[in-house]
Amino acid sequence: MQLQILRVLSAVEAQQIVKELDSWNFVDGKSTATGIAADVKRNLQGERKESGPTSLDERLLAALRANTVLRAFAYPKQLALPHFSRYEPGMEYGTHVDGAIMGGGGGSPPFRTDFAMTLFLAPPDSYDGGELVIQDNFGEQEIKLDAGEAVVYSANSLHRVAPVTRGVRLAAVTWIQSSVRDERVREILFDLQRAMSAATPKIDASTLLLLSKCHQNLLRLVVEP
Amino acid sequence: MQLQILRVLSAVEAQQIVKELDSWNFVDGKSTATGIAADVKRNLQGERKESGPTSLDERLLAALRANTVLRAFAYPKQLALPHFSRYEPGMEYGTHVDGAIMGGGGGSPPFRTDFAMTLFLAPPDSYDGGELVIQDNFGEQEIKLDAGEAVVYSANSLHRVAPVTRGVRLAAVTWIQSSVRDERVREILFDLQRAMSAATPKIDASTLLLLSKCHQNLLRLVVEP
Amino acid sequence: MQLQILRVLSAVEAQQIVKELDSWNFVDGKSTATGIAADVKRNLQGERKESGPTSLDERLLAALRANTVLRAFAYPKQLALPHFSRYEPGMEYGTHVDGAIMGGGGGSPPFRTDFAMTLFLAPPDSYDGGELVIQDNFGEQEIKLDAGEAVVYSANSLHRVAPVTRGVRLAAVTWIQSSVRDERVREILFDLQRAMSAATPKIDASTLLLLSKCHQNLLRLVVEP
Amino acid sequence: MQLQILRVLSAVEAQQIVKELDSWNFVDGKSTATGIAADVKRNLQGERKESGPTSLDERLLAALRANTVLRAFAYPKQLALPHFSRYEPGMEYGTHVDGAIMGGGGGSPPFRTDFAMTLFLAPPDSYDGGELVIQDNFGEQEIKLDAGEAVVYSANSLHRVAPVTRGVRLAAVTWIQSSVRDERVREILFDLQRAMSAATPKIDASTLLLLSKCHQNLLRLVVEP
Amino acid sequence: MQLQILRVLSAVEAQQIVKELDSWNFVDGKSTATGIAADVKRNLQGERKESGPTSLDERLLAALRANTVLRAFAYPKQLALPHFSRYEPGMEYGTHVDGAIMGGGGGSPPFRTDFAMTLFLAPPDSYDGGELVIQDNFGEQEIKLDAGEAVVYSANSLHRVAPVTRGVRLAAVTWIQSSVRDERVREILFDLQRAMSAATPKIDASTLLLLSKCHQNLLRLVVEP
Amino acid sequence: MQLQILRVLSAVEAQQIVKELDSWNFVDGKSTATGIAADVKRNLQGERKESGPTSLDERLLAALRANTVLRAFAYPKQLALPHFSRYEPGMEYGTHVDGAIMGGGGGSPPFRTDFAMTLFLAPPDSYDGGELVIQDNFGEQEIKLDAGEAVVYSANSLHRVAPVTRGVRLAAVTWIQSSVRDERVREILFDLQRAMSAATPKIDASTLLLLSKCHQNLLRLVVEP
Repeated sequence: MQLQILRVLSAVEAQQIVKELDSWNFVDGKSTATGIAADVKRNLQGERKESGPTSLDERLLAALRANTVLRAFAYPKQLALPHFSRYEPGMEYGTHVDGAIMGGGGGSPPFRTDFAMTLFLAPPDSYDGGELVIQDNFGEQEIKLDAGEAVVYSANSLHRVAPVTRGVRLAAVTWIQSSVRDERVREILFDLQRAMSAATPKIDASTLLLLSKCHQNLLRLVVEP
Repeated sequence: MQLQILRVLSAVEAQQIVKELDSWNFVDGKSTATGIAADVKRNLQGERKESGPTSLDERLLAALRANTVLRAFAYPKQLALPHFSRYEPGMEYGTHVDGAIMGGGGGSPPFRTDFAMTLFLAPPDSYDGGELVIQDNFGEQEIKLDAGEAVVYSANSLHRVAPVTRGVRLAAVTWIQSSVRDERVREILFDLQRAMSAATPKIDASTLLLLSKCHQNLLRLVVEP
Repeated sequence: MQLQILRVLSAVEAQQIVKELDSWNFVDGKSTATGIAADVKRNLQGERKESGPTSLDERLLAALRANTVLRAFAYPKQLALPHFSRYEPGMEYGTHVDGAIMGGGGGSPPFRTDFAMTLFLAPPDSYDGGELVIQDNFGEQEIKLDAGEAVVYSANSLHRVAPVTRGVRLAAVTWIQSSVRDERVREILFDLQRAMSAATPKIDASTLLLLSKCHQNLLRLVVEP
Repeated sequence: MQLQILRVLSAVEAQQIVKELDSWNFVDGKSTATGIAADVKRNLQGERKESGPTSLDERLLAALRANTVLRAFAYPKQLALPHFSRYEPGMEYGTHVDGAIMGGGGGSPPFRTDFAMTLFLAPPDSYDGGELVIQDNFGEQEIKLDAGEAVVYSANSLHRVAPVTRGVRLAAVTWIQSSVRDERVREILFDLQRAMSAATPKIDASTLLLLSKCHQNLLRLVVEP
Repeated sequence: MQLQILRVLSAVEAQQIVKELDSWNFVDGKSTATGIAADVKRNLQGERKESGPTSLDERLLAALRANTVLRAFAYPKQLALPHFSRYEPGMEYGTHVDGAIMGGGGGSPPFRTDFAMTLFLAPPDSYDGGELVIQDNFGEQEIKLDAGEAVVYSANSLHRVAPVTRGVRLAAVTWIQSSVRDERVREILFDLQRAMSAATPKIDASTLLLLSKCHQNLLRLVVEP
Repeated sequence: MQLQILRVLSAVEAQQIVKELDSWNFVDGKSTATGIAADVKRNLQGERKESGPTSLDERLLAALRANTVLRAFAYPKQLALPHFSRYEPGMEYGTHVDGAIMGGGGGSPPFRTDFAMTLFLAPPDSYDGGELVIQDNFGEQEIKLDAGEAVVYSANSLHRVAPVTRGVRLAAVTWIQSSVRDERVREILFDLQRAMSAATPKIDASTLLLLSKCHQNLLRLVVEP
């Protein structure tokens, strides 16, 4: 399991999106789930009238693509159009595992879900419950982030959204296909890039060249660009 | 070697296609073979005037994409436009192995031929000979199916079409790139899916979730979506 | 990162080992570390006079080999002779990563360290500090177990032993080469085995046979026996 | 699924072994099966009093190791000590899949079962039933060979021994770990070796050197010697 | 490291391109380099005003795609639009390794740089220096080819362009993503294809079919079409 | 192709071995070659009377195991007992590729030949010809080293020993199975280790720890210890 917390939007940008979503229509979230997941999904989801990206999608995806930590951590190859999910009191999403393949309808090509991402939009003190709960080595880990922060985590894990008991939880949820399929190699590349950044001011050019060669050649060995 | 027999069209739908093909022009099949295969190919093939799919292609491909056994068995990622082949008495296609890569001309992207598929269109009693003969562990296996039935088999095998001695053999032939390249894993996924279907009514939700997690995570490990 | 907590010995058995270790000679733990790890290792280690296993080793290794959770979780192929480590007040083991290959001297063949394992021998209330601290997705996770319990965790993680501030921390530390190298497949096998156990009383023989076929064939695909 | 039929012993050698087995003690075959296989195994098996190989084992294994078709087809790395199985009227072995790992007890190292092998010892006209039945692409394939012939087949397949209805079926059963794990590569190596044998008398030395380089370098890429 | 020298254009065709480039605008080559490479790149590069291919690009790429040695050696899947580089006296490109991923901006999809290619355009006697220098097993190898010749070499190597001391070095530089990622398999496929070409006139059809089956099935095993 | 030149013995140690070999019996070298290689091998080889290592073998192998460049470059897992080869005027070894598997007889386990190694024993001015000639990217590369120097090179390459025209060429030849099978990863590990050595005096402990983690975890991912 890999997991990383990111600052994607400022609190102000998140608040702006919350306002925009006021004018959206929200429908039953089961419409985008299949199999076991559909049985346990009890939330609302912003209705999409067209298959293509809205300007809101484009702003969000651009912010994600520009995020250097996300790039070094996840090597994103494809980002799904986000689901804008809304949990009102009593709503939750029971334990499930994300399907390995999404998309493939409506003109969008199918992609592999290496990572799931939840970008929290509502301030955490505006609702109770609604934690993203991921089954990890020590049991369940609860995650509830500031508005504008996101958690990126391996989509192969069991996870759920705890029932909301007060207020409204608004979040953007998306999935990422990585261009580095094997999480074990992704971790080495991430470590190597951080080591190079720390070492760059101190080592000479030929050593940096050698480290850069390692990094690019390991990436070349595995990347699906 | 993997092999599966499918009901793709009803007998009536197959007959309808046979009728439509009456108005096609058939040309020497060597035009779409290369190397050794061209030397041993002696059949006719429905002439294509445009590079894109006809409405007949679209109906056939839609029927294939909707076939749940095909999906669970082959994980089709790409289906080639079918060849409509016609064998008159004396015609045959000698032993050959399919090229690993097809397409790449006329705007269609190249694809890997994991599976070959023959969809029999003419009723088997309307012609003699014309069996698809595949070299398997026990030597040659002869396959002659009802109109509307198809056989999907590993394209890495040696195979041939036996000489037709009476009547006309009409078939649609296509190739499939699977999104699960390794046939050993495809078989495990196929078995797991059938086991889950059989177990679902009897086991509790948490066990089903665990099985579903296995299935999706194994697929995620290998899929080229 | 994979991690599992196991009951390996009863509290009484652990206490018995603690007593036996009373008569051992403890020497500087740096003797069995190399590179960066040696710089940060400040503990004592039970001196080994012979290269082969003692009767204490054999009892411990037998208990580990008989542990069904360990077998299903880790697929142990080789278990190293344990280090009996002793931390007195002020001692600690700074952050390090375990070498990928151990052994290879003194007649024991080299092996790959897929997992590290710490078996806690002293009761947790008999010493302060001495937590095993593993860097996980959420930062540092502290582990301090009952006497006789063990934690098995991926040896590729950064980890340390926190300073002991009171009492004596006694533990047996060992490493495991798994016969399933890829942790992603190990997790699928572990899930599948647990699902089969839960499903067995409820499903019919043919479904169980199909699940068993999946499990054995996936194992066969990857195992290094 | 891979499958090959081999002549391992002459009919006279097979008859000689049948005679030797007259003096063996045969016990319930369940003793060497586990899990689902034990439930459906109803046969007798030659009792082994020592863990090491008998002179009979050694003759059989030597005959197998010297078999050039077996070497080119299966690249045997390890051969298990054979089970001498005996089916009397009413006995059978129900459908099962072989475990992926065998051995590991009594001093013999564990090994992976890539292939199962049945060496028929009794003449086929001396008993009725007792076919080895393997589930293949076309359903069940029945195999009943002459005394001294053997079938080597992928151990990942479902297979069974049909009930014996007359006479006694005597066979030696063993398993093989291949030094080429991936059956897809094994088939290419087998094809290449046969092509080289056929081409050698006709092509010049430099072409043969190039083919030999292909063969050795592909083998080097995958072999687990 | 893999390396191959190719005749791509005739001397006359190369001269024609040199003339066409006379009317191009050349800008600082640093604009298309990143990281360490940008620090050591001191050359000029033909300015591109549009993102799509020019007619010059198309002629060059067509010549490359039609080159049968390149196809058998490199299995090109994607060819980047060439950089037209110009080195005047005093210019050079210091030692660097090519990035693993290029493209991804301006509408062109990202691709993996398995090979780099330098197509020499200026006659070698028209300039001094300007050798392509690749670090190989024996240290540095200098390459300076006739106008119209190209060298294709593994992009994972350290390489540089030596300072030009007289005249002008004009070259087209491009990168290739291979559809066969693993260079070890590429070499086997290249050897096998050359062996088949040499053997074809001498061996019978069934042996050739077996060799062709090996070639196609090995390709099928690894190709990313 | 990977290749590295090493100083294994001092000139004096090499001379000492040359003296010891004076008392050996030399026999036709064809006895240890098979297939095509035997056809082109015309040299002498020190006769081995016992299957185990002599004290000369042990000195040589110990010197190789202690060589830190060899360890970082080749990750040797198994070293074959050396052949002591002797070429007198007129002798040579024609172009061949080494078999992928050696050993397996006389009690020594079979191993994979990832590298071949020639340790030159006679001073280069004591004989003419006798170069080791390896086919590399630029055609044939000739290697003739000082007494006590060795060349380690990929065993998958075509190579030969040029005819000796004066004096006597004495060399020790051996083969190495690497514990890192994939040469592409071996090169990254070698680069990373050299970069770490160069960077260690300059970077802080936490950066060095991160680099060390990369190195060990990449090794752990691939090593066959």
